[in-house]
Amino acid sequence: MTSSRASRLFSASAAIRGAGAPLDATKLKVQNHSTPSQPRANDELVFGKTFTDHMLTIEWTKQNGWGTPEIKPYGNLSLDPAACVFHYAFELFEGLKAYRSRDDKITMFRPDKNMERMNKSAARICLPTFDSDELIALMGKLIEQDKHLVPQGEGYSLYVRPTMIGTTAALGVGTPDRALLYVITSPVGPYFKSGFKAVKLLATDNATRAWPGGVGDKKLGANYAPCILPQLKAAEKGYQQNLWLFGPEKYITEVGTMNVFFVLKDNATGKKELVTAPLDGTILEGVTRDSILTLARENLDPKEWEVNERYLSINEVAERARKGELVEAFGAGTAAVVSPIKEIGWQDENIDVPLQPGKQAGKLTEQIANWIADIQYGRQPHGNWSRVVANLK
Amino acid sequence: MTSSRASRLFSASAAIRGAGAPLDATKLKVQNHSTPSQPRANDELVFGKTFTDHMLTIEWTKQNGWGTPEIKPYGNLSLDPAACVFHYAFELFEGLKAYRSRDDKITMFRPDKNMERMNKSAARICLPTFDSDELIALMGKLIEQDKHLVPQGEGYSLYVRPTMIGTTAALGVGTPDRALLYVITSPVGPYFKSGFKAVKLLATDNATRAWPGGVGDKKLGANYAPCILPQLKAAEKGYQQNLWLFGPEKYITEVGTMNVFFVLKDNATGKKELVTAPLDGTILEGVTRDSILTLARENLDPKEWEVNERYLSINEVAERARKGELVEAFGAGTAAVVSPIKEIGWQDENIDVPLQPGKQAGKLTEQIANWIADIQYGRQPHGNWSRVVANLK
Repeated sequence: MTSSRASRLFSASAAIRGAGAPLDATKLKVQNHSTPSQPRANDELVFGKTFTDHMLTIEWTKQNGWGTPEIKPYGNLSLDPAACVFHYAFELFEGLKAYRSRDDKITMFRPDKNMERMNKSAARICLPTFDSDELIALMGKLIEQDKHLVPQGEGYSLYVRPTMIGTTAALGVGTPDRALLYVITSPVGPYFKSGFKAVKLLATDNATRAWPGGVGDKKLGANYAPCILPQLKAAEKGYQQNLWLFGPEKYITEVGTMNVFFVLKDNATGKKELVTAPLDGTILEGVTRDSILTLARENLDPKEWEVNERYLSINEVAERARKGELVEAFGAGTAAVVSPIKEIGWQDENIDVPLQPGKQAGKLTEQIANWIADIQYGRQPHGNWSRVVANLK
Repeated sequence: MTSSRASRLFSASAAIRGAGAPLDATKLKVQNHSTPSQPRANDELVFGKTFTDHMLTIEWTKQNGWGTPEIKPYGNLSLDPAACVFHYAFELFEGLKAYRSRDDKITMFRPDKNMERMNKSAARICLPTFDSDELIALMGKLIEQDKHLVPQGEGYSLYVRPTMIGTTAALGVGTPDRALLYVITSPVGPYFKSGFKAVKLLATDNATRAWPGGVGDKKLGANYAPCILPQLKAAEKGYQQNLWLFGPEKYITEVGTMNVFFVLKDNATGKKELVTAPLDGTILEGVTRDSILTLARENLDPKEWEVNERYLSINEVAERARKGELVEAFGAGTAAVVSPIKEIGWQDENIDVPLQPGKQAGKLTEQIANWIADIQYGRQPHGNWSRVVANLK
């Protein structure tokens, strides 16, 4: 399918948004938690297991549009057992992080990109779209509400999880006429406790994560549950994640929770290439992926480097490794930011990926991780990538 | 992927079921609804919009296995907003019907097949499996509890919706360690109020429902939400549903809520063929599909008929229609049972499907619908297909 054909078919429709009220941050109502909780020690933080005191909820109906945004104590959702989120996977989410900057602000990293993607995900499964800036403002209010729980220190942040679910209580398979948008937040540490820890991936072609004409480029719940069993099988063989391949050419797509990058070197010319899969509808349009491509194109000397979005097969990677032309590999996503890869299992062999001596990452991998951390923690400005969403004082 | 390779990869693992308690119907606890509701008039029944007074719930934890089954008043579920069902589509369901027989019993149609499929769906996304007979016994108890709400009359039944969701409250993408199995029931009438009403389908190749190595053969929520936008686009053009095609050959797969059958006739030999897509992992293993194939093989004269599970492309259907060799087409599933097709849109043309004069169905379509109704309403026994699950008196 050509992309223009796809965009015609799947364009966000005004009909889906409905004629009702737009999302409006100024309508916010706040109900305070009775006793604010104490922050946990940084070393007790486990990714996505503990949450802050408050959550944000906004109901939507087809008839009336977006309702009153509410910040209220974190607590259970009460939903009809026939709600379509339970039966037909009307659900989507985003993942962002909020950081303490050195000047007592709280910032988010490129939240406009996440909101843009969240709206694309919503339109694709007929859930309502919304004004991105309004939700960014509301997330800011939620973060400010629990600002004492935003952790301090390099590698620490507040993980922010906007979620939208269809809540129509009817078993007929159709367009939801009710939805709930909510945001919960979780204080998190570095994905790997002691700095970088390079991972092992299993290149997987006997299960397929996504397909042209499918929804693999959207952040829908539907893309995740089917990947867990292959992940368990990979774990049984000692690999942390699957490296999803596609098609008879065995093209490398992504890791499911991360996009993936390779550094290759042409031994004849000495020229290096940073390469990741193109956005063809089967891989997630990662914000970290986009940021890395932008920074690499800005910072790497074009005389020495090519930065390419192109198809790369696992067979090419194996062949380049044999020739000593595989230099580095890493995953990229919001949760782990940059995650170095040390080994890829493929057809009962292991492709070894070089690391720097005594380190758990390649040279460019480390450099890129630093470029991004400098922007995220406010040490290095980069256009409007770091956006102040709350004040600490 | 060969099917043996697939079954090795995705076999139900004892590890997933866990070492805890098995599902045990004898542990059932019943909490009665305070005021039993009155049955609605048959003509007020809308598919899956009204529910009976009670629901069945059973919690599962990895540590303890299946908990106490409870029948209690129908009511909202209370779930942590971080529950994995909301984020990663850990959810699956089944659809069955319960019928009043003429001798005051309530029967279900081949519930063992649905339970077998439900266990396959569960294993595929790492949710717990269970003993089919125990859940059939519990569904019987639930139906008996609300037996006054099982509608009477040909075409009327109680739709039964077993559902399983992952309830682990953590944002890390992993295997759920908590789940909830629940069953709700809805009194329903014929899918189309006035007997058969033939439908128009749009043959669709610019979106893809399922693919090899995916989960299109499982009854997972993940297969449904992505199909709604294409369905809306089909509806805008006057078609009720999509007829999902696959691959460069444009093979006909299924309708998303139904499997699909075609009747073709060879003008040269006069021989007729009943054909449906093979179970290759991309189409749902429909219980109605299986029943129709069995009944057709039992009842149709092999001198006149072939009954085939084979690949059939939309181009072949169009070509056979041009030659006057397309005789009938129909969808088959639990909700609509048998749904005649009168027209298929394909590349700005319409393939007309013949109907009997003055009727909304072809001859074999009508015959098959009667064969199945006779078994479902207890007028004609067929092995153990009709299973008594409750007594009316």
